[in-house]
Amino acid sequence: MILDTLLKQIDFIKEIDKIKYIQRKTKLFNSDRQENDAEHSWHLAMMAIVLAEHSNEKIDILKVLKMVLIHDIVEIDAGDTFIYDTEKNHTNTDEERLAAQRIFGILPKEQAEELIAIWEEFEASETAEAKFAKAMDRLEPLLQNSSNNGGTWNEPGVTYKKVFAKKSAIKEGAESIWPYAESLLNEGVKKGILKDERN
Amino acid sequence: MILDTLLKQIDFIKEIDKIKYIQRKTKLFNSDRQENDAEHSWHLAMMAIVLAEHSNEKIDILKVLKMVLIHDIVEIDAGDTFIYDTEKNHTNTDEERLAAQRIFGILPKEQAEELIAIWEEFEASETAEAKFAKAMDRLEPLLQNSSNNGGTWNEPGVTYKKVFAKKSAIKEGAESIWPYAESLLNEGVKKGILKDERN
Repeated sequence: MILDTLLKQIDFIKEIDKIKYIQRKTKLFNSDRQENDAEHSWHLAMMAIVLAEHSNEKIDILKVLKMVLIHDIVEIDAGDTFIYDTEKNHTNTDEERLAAQRIFGILPKEQAEELIAIWEEFEASETAEAKFAKAMDRLEPLLQNSSNNGGTWNEPGVTYKKVFAKKSAIKEGAESIWPYAESLLNEGVKKGILKDERN
Repeated sequence: MILDTLLKQIDFIKEIDKIKYIQRKTKLFNSDRQENDAEHSWHLAMMAIVLAEHSNEKIDILKVLKMVLIHDIVEIDAGDTFIYDTEKNHTNTDEERLAAQRIFGILPKEQAEELIAIWEEFEASETAEAKFAKAMDRLEPLLQNSSNNGGTWNEPGVTYKKVFAKKSAIKEGAESIWPYAESLLNEGVKKGILKDERN
């Protein structure tokens, strides 16, 4: 029985290695290399640990860590969608839901159910933990782009207004970080690395 | 005051991006690409979540996650040392201790002290959390090498005996995983991907 459980867990551990091959649009700090989903998830986990005190609400940090560590695993099947993609919805697609069932479903039943529920909670952005996790997910590329000559802000159709709209999730989760985040956006416009359509 | 704290935290978040450039000897599952420290740390965190029930002792899983997420950050300054390197001691060097002071020292004082203490605890391998974290750190490359045509077992001087000695840390942290781990080593020898000097 222990062996049966363990073998399922090991199969899952091997399967999720695949997120190391999933490239995001966003590039590393000070580099032209794209970030992959494993690196991104690690960085969000570190940010959650270090920035926890900025959460608007009291949070269960263990749950936040689980959320950010697993949030992109569905992309093994569903792929990464660029957040400013106008044709494809970024999250909560049927494709992602099927992916969650298949991949987390490799685990023993109880664990599969726990991780699917945590992933759904993240996607729904309603609990304190999900809001803070989303704030981290929006903050990382903001830090990357602003220290990396604009990064994905240079992609066609990406403008201050669109970026601002996506970044407001930072305020929802961590209001004390928002003034700093907003200053990075304004600085981006001033430097000419973020296209401004405000005027 | 909040801003001063936040700016230190952001500086730390930017600094640790560098572990994405630190290549381990070990290769990804089913691939010839080397794994980097961020990918490795993410995978250990996922393994700790999924395998927690196998810990010999009751563990604070949040502390284990912090341990595995930060355990290689010192390598930004000290570099990665191959575990079977005969000339250089793998861990606990003065170089790593200095690195911990410098890198975690970017954070506000209290956080710096917390993370340095957690890193030291991991290195000392004495507490239940550290033993379980070490077990994960030994198990990942075992899974990789055994599913990857031997991987780093093909390096000169790496033999069953040496690998077995390092892998016993798995037993110290998670005895119920050990029979499976040992079977992978024996299978490696049988397949001819792990050099045997037992006879």
